[in-house]
Amino acid sequence: MAKKKITPKSKPTILITNDDGITSPGIRALVEEMTKLGNVIVVAPDSPQSGMGHAITLDSPLRLERVEIFEGVESYECSGTPVDCVKVAVDKIIKGKPDLCVSGINHGSNSSINVIYSGTMSAAMEAAIEGICAIGFSYLNYLHDADMSLPRKVAFEVSKQVLKNGLPKNVLLNVNIPDVSVSGYNGVRVCRQAVAKWEEEFAERVDPRGRKYYWLTGKFVNYDLGDDTDEWALTNGYASVVPVQFDLTAHHAIPYLINNWKLNAENR
Amino acid sequence: MAKKKITPKSKPTILITNDDGITSPGIRALVEEMTKLGNVIVVAPDSPQSGMGHAITLDSPLRLERVEIFEGVESYECSGTPVDCVKVAVDKIIKGKPDLCVSGINHGSNSSINVIYSGTMSAAMEAAIEGICAIGFSYLNYLHDADMSLPRKVAFEVSKQVLKNGLPKNVLLNVNIPDVSVSGYNGVRVCRQAVAKWEEEFAERVDPRGRKYYWLTGKFVNYDLGDDTDEWALTNGYASVVPVQFDLTAHHAIPYLINNWKLNAENR
Repeated sequence: MAKKKITPKSKPTILITNDDGITSPGIRALVEEMTKLGNVIVVAPDSPQSGMGHAITLDSPLRLERVEIFEGVESYECSGTPVDCVKVAVDKIIKGKPDLCVSGINHGSNSSINVIYSGTMSAAMEAAIEGICAIGFSYLNYLHDADMSLPRKVAFEVSKQVLKNGLPKNVLLNVNIPDVSVSGYNGVRVCRQAVAKWEEEFAERVDPRGRKYYWLTGKFVNYDLGDDTDEWALTNGYASVVPVQFDLTAHHAIPYLINNWKLNAENR
Repeated sequence: MAKKKITPKSKPTILITNDDGITSPGIRALVEEMTKLGNVIVVAPDSPQSGMGHAITLDSPLRLERVEIFEGVESYECSGTPVDCVKVAVDKIIKGKPDLCVSGINHGSNSSINVIYSGTMSAAMEAAIEGICAIGFSYLNYLHDADMSLPRKVAFEVSKQVLKNGLPKNVLLNVNIPDVSVSGYNGVRVCRQAVAKWEEEFAERVDPRGRKYYWLTGKFVNYDLGDDTDEWALTNGYASVVPVQFDLTAHHAIPYLINNWKLNAENR
């Protein structure tokens, strides 16, 4: 009793969400690492939501259920998207801002252009819009039984750093972890988003009633030869850390459009 | 017969999509304006997809049906998201790149932070990722029977300009049209995305079985006093034109993270 005890209030509050759903191994690994750093609250989708981008639920109501899934951790499953989870966590559960929001650990890459399609990253972005320090973690091994040792280590280290130092205003982090062993890992590298895209092909099928349907498939193509990109880092055994912003303005294009287009209305 | 005829090949190909669905008045207005500028192909969602952000359909197949809905215009409805529509149009229908992709006219604003949640803008962004000149149009009057005279005029003028001049690489346009009469309209203004956000509140309800559920509601708050923002333009009777990019890297934060964090691995 004489021993000084860290009271719950002195520990940071960490909100955890993801897009693979609350039962995925990736979120479990993240919960276990984050409980070493603070008081954890989980609000995550009740079903997989990969590829949901920054979708929100407008036309149907949300369900939110308390679940006992992580020992000693207050956890809720939500019927909505990853972005909905963050919104409802802030408004209905935490009723204020957590000190940190972490999303993941995603089963599969969210590097380069994938940041745009990613529910994992959109949840983190929503937290950042709310003024909360936020990080998305993704692991390049998408197997359900993947060894999570390295992503656990990276998530712990980067989150600890963000809790200590904070982040620049309106900036969140997109952290991707290479599919290498802990011994083959070269450390963290701060990067820019590589110029890359998916070249889509739709695979055509015919249903039993003779009607065509299509599956989205595609090939990832990296056009970027820079050694300062996330793709370069990941190929070379580094975890990539890309600072991400939600101001989508192409500021460099504003003078071009004003001067070349002559479309702007004169001041009246 | 001696009169010089513009052959279909000399006219630009314009892909049209939206997020309100193929039967919305906004897309009809856009189709009617774009047929004055080129050969139009429509691929749009078969149901409303507002708030879908950059969602893509990974876990279910897509349906694509030819429909006769706009006289003389090749049109398809797709079971997927706005982004899916662009992907499938490029891969399966046009089998190449159109000269322009226009999305909308959205019933409701996609200015400032709304660009992040918008299916209209995500469809345009997907086209830009594919290397296609792209524009999203949104009208601040969201009523189904809104007078579309002004949004028609703006969509025609801006699209004509883009067909003539092109756009800077990896840049698309987010065009929002104020809810004013044509006589109260001050013209186009090139802007940056305002710093604004939604302050969410979830409205709680109870179902007939006594279980709670939640509706997303919220209040839009503009924190930005600048007169160079889209919100300023719209409030002052201008159509806002924001150049948008899909490189989300916060480039200004890279040196900060490298120098202050000391987290980067040493070169090995």
